[in-house]
Amino acid sequence: MESFDLNDHSHRRYNALTGDWVLVSPHRSKRPWQGQQETVAKEERPQYDPTCYLCPGNLRANGETNPDYPSTFVFTNDFAALQSETPAGSFTKGNLIKAESERGICRVICFSPRHDLTLSEISVPEIRKVVDLWEQEYLELGALDYINYVQIFENKGTVMGSSNPHPHGQIWAQSSVPVEPAKETVQQTQYYQQNGRSLLADYLALELEEKTRIVLENEHFVALIPFWAVWPFETMIISRRHFQHLGQMNDTEKDAFAAIMKQLSEVYDRLFQTSFPYSAGLHQSPTDGQEHPEWHFHMHFYPPLLRSATVKKFMVGYELMGNPQRDITPESAAERLRGLV
Amino acid sequence: MESFDLNDHSHRRYNALTGDWVLVSPHRSKRPWQGQQETVAKEERPQYDPTCYLCPGNLRANGETNPDYPSTFVFTNDFAALQSETPAGSFTKGNLIKAESERGICRVICFSPRHDLTLSEISVPEIRKVVDLWEQEYLELGALDYINYVQIFENKGTVMGSSNPHPHGQIWAQSSVPVEPAKETVQQTQYYQQNGRSLLADYLALELEEKTRIVLENEHFVALIPFWAVWPFETMIISRRHFQHLGQMNDTEKDAFAAIMKQLSEVYDRLFQTSFPYSAGLHQSPTDGQEHPEWHFHMHFYPPLLRSATVKKFMVGYELMGNPQRDITPESAAERLRGLV
Ligand SMILES: O=P(O)(O)O[C@H]1O[C@H](CO)[C@@H](O)[C@H](O)[C@H]1O
Ligand SMILES: O=P(O)(O)O[C@H]1O[C@H](CO)[C@@H](O)[C@H](O)[C@H]1O
Repeated sequence: MESFDLNDHSHRRYNALTGDWVLVSPHRSKRPWQGQQETVAKEERPQYDPTCYLCPGNLRANGETNPDYPSTFVFTNDFAALQSETPAGSFTKGNLIKAESERGICRVICFSPRHDLTLSEISVPEIRKVVDLWEQEYLELGALDYINYVQIFENKGTVMGSSNPHPHGQIWAQSSVPVEPAKETVQQTQYYQQNGRSLLADYLALELEEKTRIVLENEHFVALIPFWAVWPFETMIISRRHFQHLGQMNDTEKDAFAAIMKQLSEVYDRLFQTSFPYSAGLHQSPTDGQEHPEWHFHMHFYPPLLRSATVKKFMVGYELMGNPQRDITPESAAERLRGLV
Repeated sequence: MESFDLNDHSHRRYNALTGDWVLVSPHRSKRPWQGQQETVAKEERPQYDPTCYLCPGNLRANGETNPDYPSTFVFTNDFAALQSETPAGSFTKGNLIKAESERGICRVICFSPRHDLTLSEISVPEIRKVVDLWEQEYLELGALDYINYVQIFENKGTVMGSSNPHPHGQIWAQSSVPVEPAKETVQQTQYYQQNGRSLLADYLALELEEKTRIVLENEHFVALIPFWAVWPFETMIISRRHFQHLGQMNDTEKDAFAAIMKQLSEVYDRLFQTSFPYSAGLHQSPTDGQEHPEWHFHMHFYPPLLRSATVKKFMVGYELMGNPQRDITPESAAERLRGLV
């Protein structure tokens, strides 16, 4: 009988960071596609758009006027999913119906005053200013006694639900630790207790040995396609040094982090010759007052595109009822991205 | 201080069936939408399409010709994500890189020879034939020694990744129990051991008392928006009687199941006056040779639309990095659907 080969045969991969599984079907990538095609946003955008509520000097929904900001700008979301004045409380019926009030704060961060640029197009020193603001927000929000987790993220592109092309990200800070970082906490804690080392540091060492899933690296960070990646070109940026959050990054690391984000997004843009859509986000230790020595700072990029600027991967029936599924292997995806560095 | 109110304040709801949580932000439904709009497929379709690989008498990718089937038709997927001849094996590096070979079978089921109809448009006796075929496939595939889970599902509409409008569903049967039914097994087992009763039977009793999340019911089944629903108009069909899988449904129950599926999809179509897209699927006991007295048969509907035929809910940045989030409450969504019965 033929022997099992990751490049040819269907298999499941274990996500050591969350405990989940993904189904990989390498041979399925040859399937023809006759389904929905995304429209590609026209690339021509003005540097300043008088109708954009994120551009400097413009009016927002709540009647405030944006300052004439020269680099970054942060404000509380006018349509926030979480609010600081939410009263405490809960609602239960038997032990099967259970809800708990959730307090929080939602912020919007403009990456640049320029309406026409993206993260891949602004300079490293400018991205560095975004990193500094992220750090400040993480520390300030995290210091509030009712905030136990600070989720920093970006939705880029209309296909990822972004309704404004002005380069911006969001922060949702809240009382509970959401499901994904909670799973990562469980897995990292277990590993740390058993091995006395960071799960992601050990994982990174394995990947640097294997090399097949590395996309690019600099002195302080590595960008790779995780072994258990779900999205076709999903990547993760992992810090070489084991630390928990932005507040512990030193100056050189911050510059290196800005640099690798820019380089990775340039590679992404080259892949399908389009402004590459994705949702990206930082995973850091909870701000619950504990030390969390198990936590290892990292950033996820979840891009939806599969074959071209217009054909994405659909996470639908099997994926929603069973578990995520992918066609191209993480190794072949990494090879393609590496070729574009 | 104001007291906590599910209809006004942000909160998290616990999913008793999976152990996950969803963030609910009732006040956020007033947010304006300027982002991506879906295109609505033109509704004019011929009864027979000579280029459709699912229509009777047509040629498929593998060179086979479909029979001139009068009702339903099942065949093995020509681009299957799982294959029966996959060799056994695994791949590991340390304890952080872990893959296991996965054997399985993927099938396609045509619901009707008519190219132009959907589940809401074919008659109850015709849907009953689909139920019978699902049962047959569940039992036949499940009887294979290497098949431990049979996932029956449908992707409807281009927005849900369906590449062919001919009414059809899929079956992915495999060696492992996928992540979602595995979580449901854990939760149902725990409840069953602690209470000696079915989790979903007890949950259904609570819902029938509360009434606020019920959409419609018949003698044997209830369609409701679960308390922990993630998608705006997500529903679940639960059997009143506690049984594990299709093979245990009696004749009257099968007819009632066909009837409630048709009624629910008609309600869905009325909501935004469009052929309502969704991914739907059956959750049944694993076919691993165990009895699974804890399992309670049910069906999930995950529809993406939020405000209209063209504006969907995006599960993106916060949702992927944190956990799912919804704006309108399950109670207000149920009220709207109930008004359309
Ligand atoms: O098998 P199909 O219909 O070609 O493909 C569709 O359903 C599959 C199962 O949910 C998904 O993996 C695909 O992304 C989707 O496009
Ligand atoms: O807050 P925005 O940009 O209006 O909204 C976008 O991001 C949110 C957070 O991921 C999602 O909940 C919304 O579905 C999406 O459209």
